[in-house]
Amino acid sequence: MSVIQDLRRTVADLHRELTRYELVIWTAGNVSARVPGQDLMVIKPSGVSYDQLTPEAMVVTDLHGNLVEGDYSPSSDTAAHAYVYRHMPEVNGVVHTHSPYATAWAARGEPIPCVLTMIADEFGGEIPVGPFALIGDDSIGQGIVETLRDSRSPAVLMRNHGPFTIGKDARAAVKAAVMLEDVARTVHFAHQLGTPKPIEQHHVDSLYARYQNVYGQ
Amino acid sequence: MSVIQDLRRTVADLHRELTRYELVIWTAGNVSARVPGQDLMVIKPSGVSYDQLTPEAMVVTDLHGNLVEGDYSPSSDTAAHAYVYRHMPEVNGVVHTHSPYATAWAARGEPIPCVLTMIADEFGGEIPVGPFALIGDDSIGQGIVETLRDSRSPAVLMRNHGPFTIGKDARAAVKAAVMLEDVARTVHFAHQLGTPKPIEQHHVDSLYARYQNVYGQ
Amino acid sequence: MSVIQDLRRTVADLHRELTRYELVIWTAGNVSARVPGQDLMVIKPSGVSYDQLTPEAMVVTDLHGNLVEGDYSPSSDTAAHAYVYRHMPEVNGVVHTHSPYATAWAARGEPIPCVLTMIADEFGGEIPVGPFALIGDDSIGQGIVETLRDSRSPAVLMRNHGPFTIGKDARAAVKAAVMLEDVARTVHFAHQLGTPKPIEQHHVDSLYARYQNVYGQ
Amino acid sequence: MSVIQDLRRTVADLHRELTRYELVIWTAGNVSARVPGQDLMVIKPSGVSYDQLTPEAMVVTDLHGNLVEGDYSPSSDTAAHAYVYRHMPEVNGVVHTHSPYATAWAARGEPIPCVLTMIADEFGGEIPVGPFALIGDDSIGQGIVETLRDSRSPAVLMRNHGPFTIGKDARAAVKAAVMLEDVARTVHFAHQLGTPKPIEQHHVDSLYARYQNVYGQ
Repeated sequence: MSVIQDLRRTVADLHRELTRYELVIWTAGNVSARVPGQDLMVIKPSGVSYDQLTPEAMVVTDLHGNLVEGDYSPSSDTAAHAYVYRHMPEVNGVVHTHSPYATAWAARGEPIPCVLTMIADEFGGEIPVGPFALIGDDSIGQGIVETLRDSRSPAVLMRNHGPFTIGKDARAAVKAAVMLEDVARTVHFAHQLGTPKPIEQHHVDSLYARYQNVYGQ
Repeated sequence: MSVIQDLRRTVADLHRELTRYELVIWTAGNVSARVPGQDLMVIKPSGVSYDQLTPEAMVVTDLHGNLVEGDYSPSSDTAAHAYVYRHMPEVNGVVHTHSPYATAWAARGEPIPCVLTMIADEFGGEIPVGPFALIGDDSIGQGIVETLRDSRSPAVLMRNHGPFTIGKDARAAVKAAVMLEDVARTVHFAHQLGTPKPIEQHHVDSLYARYQNVYGQ
Repeated sequence: MSVIQDLRRTVADLHRELTRYELVIWTAGNVSARVPGQDLMVIKPSGVSYDQLTPEAMVVTDLHGNLVEGDYSPSSDTAAHAYVYRHMPEVNGVVHTHSPYATAWAARGEPIPCVLTMIADEFGGEIPVGPFALIGDDSIGQGIVETLRDSRSPAVLMRNHGPFTIGKDARAAVKAAVMLEDVARTVHFAHQLGTPKPIEQHHVDSLYARYQNVYGQ
Repeated sequence: MSVIQDLRRTVADLHRELTRYELVIWTAGNVSARVPGQDLMVIKPSGVSYDQLTPEAMVVTDLHGNLVEGDYSPSSDTAAHAYVYRHMPEVNGVVHTHSPYATAWAARGEPIPCVLTMIADEFGGEIPVGPFALIGDDSIGQGIVETLRDSRSPAVLMRNHGPFTIGKDARAAVKAAVMLEDVARTVHFAHQLGTPKPIEQHHVDSLYARYQNVYGQ
């Protein structure tokens, strides 16, 4: 069970990045990680405040959202995370927030255009909008998967709701959530006083290819 | 008197959520709690800075705002809190802030439309505007009660003034104040670059019903 | 010299409110206090960062800005503070910042209209604009005094520059600077999506009278 | 090697100003310093988070970006910093961020007009836009140098990308980055509700001359 213990700590710690960058308030946002090689995930409990998110408070569910281990009920967004893990085997981390600028684009149902090199680097093009979907069944998960399956973007703006991001691990999904809010905000500012100039597609392609392959250690 | 001691601590601590989420500046905002089973309330003292809000600094008044216990004068908004407790027996916590985005809607006298699932969840529909009312008598309290009595919303935007929120306890009223500013801000952003799409009424109803009954532990 | 020692500490500490409320960056903003009964003032040194503002780092000048005591040169805004103390004997504290929302109103040369009860309470009406004035002589001080002499407002928006606030002591001037930025921001937000409703003059008058006489301990 | 040890510490510490003023997120921004009298520079490693930026984590490269000393790969912006040092011998510090307001001006390709005394003081006139340039060769460095060579401004807004700032040392370049974001934000706010009044050129000249020669200790 030591892998799960490690993931409990990782997922608990990553929630601190959500509060550090002010992507969440009160209890409204969550991080999960797939347990490698098992049909399990580690996720935030429902309605527990970020100050109390110790590794022990995290819960473990199967990939249909049934509680396997833990003292609390899992996040009310568990079904959406689970659906993503069932249908996107390359994804090992999922994040959901209501970060304000990204959610404002989602409320209008407008994708964020690729007008910054940082968007080309991290998202590979415009950041897409997903459908309006009610919580309670697989609708949200389906909307995420259908939107992201054919996109380079690790982020989807769920209509009237807020963003979900994915990654090869939970840290990558959190990074995408942080960068999403940053570019959602900057492009919002740019649009307030005019129209930013789009980056040509061949430049987007070369920025994306380089960033995915060369950046970092 | 141990119940009152506990409430003094709870109310003192909850003011930290107002500063954490930047809903208040200097001394301009306050939390109160009804003392269960007694015609008393615990409230912030007037003009005392948030750094100095120990449990001992809190004051106890009756439900007409007369000082019963404490070293300071009660908040200048005490009459409004007291009026709410007298007329809404199901309310046990009241919060007042001048949080900037919510107050901007109040300054225009415009309700916040229900264009986010978070608004449907927590507020059950649009967030209403209350009348312009002067401090000094029961006008503010009357405006709050008349507006909220027929609404699902635990928040009212008092015209040219700022928001008041209510709850089944002081923590719930603080949560409503935090979420109010968050959605006031996101919907503000959404409107700056276009018009967000409203959520259909039957979806609002089902989101509200689920959140009130299922969310949390 | 114990009064001056106390004022050095008070003025040093009050600069922390400027950073707490994000009214200043780097070294660009300053607080001063008149030394009661003497033609002296205590003020921030020039170009020293806020982390290093100990009581000992403060400087004492006469009311023409000449250094009397201290290891550093006084703030480059010393002449403006000194002019205010020479011409407004009821003023014992002065604050200057470039807080962003207040400075945006100053850049357009537009007063902040009295559309919030908080503006009526603290400023007694609209917050006025002062003239464009170059640093280096008494121009800025003259602009402040001429604008504030006939106003209830303790704040003036110096054109293309930023706000100055005054008070019966340094703490009151800092409070005015904090509340100024708060209302500058909220009214900015309100104007972004429409036109806030003005408060009738007789209501402004009664709010101002009450707040000046009743609020606090 | 003690000079380099000192610079490692200085550069590591200066990154904390970038996070303090929220100019950067995750790992996206960097500070460098020229090693005096040697064809070397100290710069942030690539993709390392700000919490982990100890003096030891910094890397030393030559002025073509080749690693000379350090355990990590240098920042992916190293080529741009190196080009500046090779072509502007008076520059000893370079900073790159994607600070949101400055980047919004860059996304529209609009210079920031000189409508604040703080802009005249620090930037000596409008803050210019540099060309769109891809990462990977000397294009970004060339764009910076060509834009800043004929300007008083220590800051350039690289189109669709973000700002670079320069200084006589790394601290001056960081100060310019901090003040750039501040004025980018205030002028953004000013433009949202109207048109700020420009400062006459002869006033800009005298403000710039005074600030460069008189301000500080």
